[in-house]
Amino acid sequence: MAMIPFKINFSEKFSKLPSDDYSVGIVARMNDYEFKLVKFRGEFVWHSHPDTDETFIILDGRMMMHFRDKWVEVKSGEMIVIPKGVEHKPASKEGYKALLIEPEGVPNTGDVKNEMTIKKVEWI
Amino acid sequence: MAMIPFKINFSEKFSKLPSDDYSVGIVARMNDYEFKLVKFRGEFVWHSHPDTDETFIILDGRMMMHFRDKWVEVKSGEMIVIPKGVEHKPASKEGYKALLIEPEGVPNTGDVKNEMTIKKVEWI
Repeated sequence: MAMIPFKINFSEKFSKLPSDDYSVGIVARMNDYEFKLVKFRGEFVWHSHPDTDETFIILDGRMMMHFRDKWVEVKSGEMIVIPKGVEHKPASKEGYKALLIEPEGVPNTGDVKNEMTIKKVEWI
Repeated sequence: MAMIPFKINFSEKFSKLPSDDYSVGIVARMNDYEFKLVKFRGEFVWHSHPDTDETFIILDGRMMMHFRDKWVEVKSGEMIVIPKGVEHKPASKEGYKALLIEPEGVPNTGDVKNEMTIKKVEWI
């Protein structure tokens, strides 16, 4: 049976995330992909996702997406797709809010495990 | 070889679309999914996509997403996932701009063919 379609309001959902420098919650699903809202400030960890591309849509603020040989500034109203296997490191001094799209179950720190690795992202 | 990651600026891309009431262009790809920017004003056609969910992220304006038994207003800062097989009809008096996400090659009018059917959506 088909789900009853509902809309997702980003502001409302962000208000459910804790005010930490890094927090993530799942808000929607499309086929086997998940949509996650992310708040981040600081420097993430270098990592890559060996099996999938990953999309960031910036909703507020700006990020510096670092690659090994360059960086790209991505701000509100912009998006970037990280190709699978490409090492990257999000960073932001002022902080950003983003919508992240990737297949279900992709680890947030990709091929790396450290203190930033989230075992299980919850729905909000 | 991995693609060189680049960012997409929605305003810049929208400026490349014709000023018709309905226009669509592809702006990015993630695995076998495409991201399309859509401008729409008016009433679309009732249709469904039998094999896939479909995501609308509203970037500007508002739409009434009609279903057979209800409708949902979706406005800037909101998104909705249309489950596969569910009949829907986007409509908007004032017009909206949206980011549409679905697998490559999904026909815009789903299971229906009429004068709104686009044979091939181009990259912008």
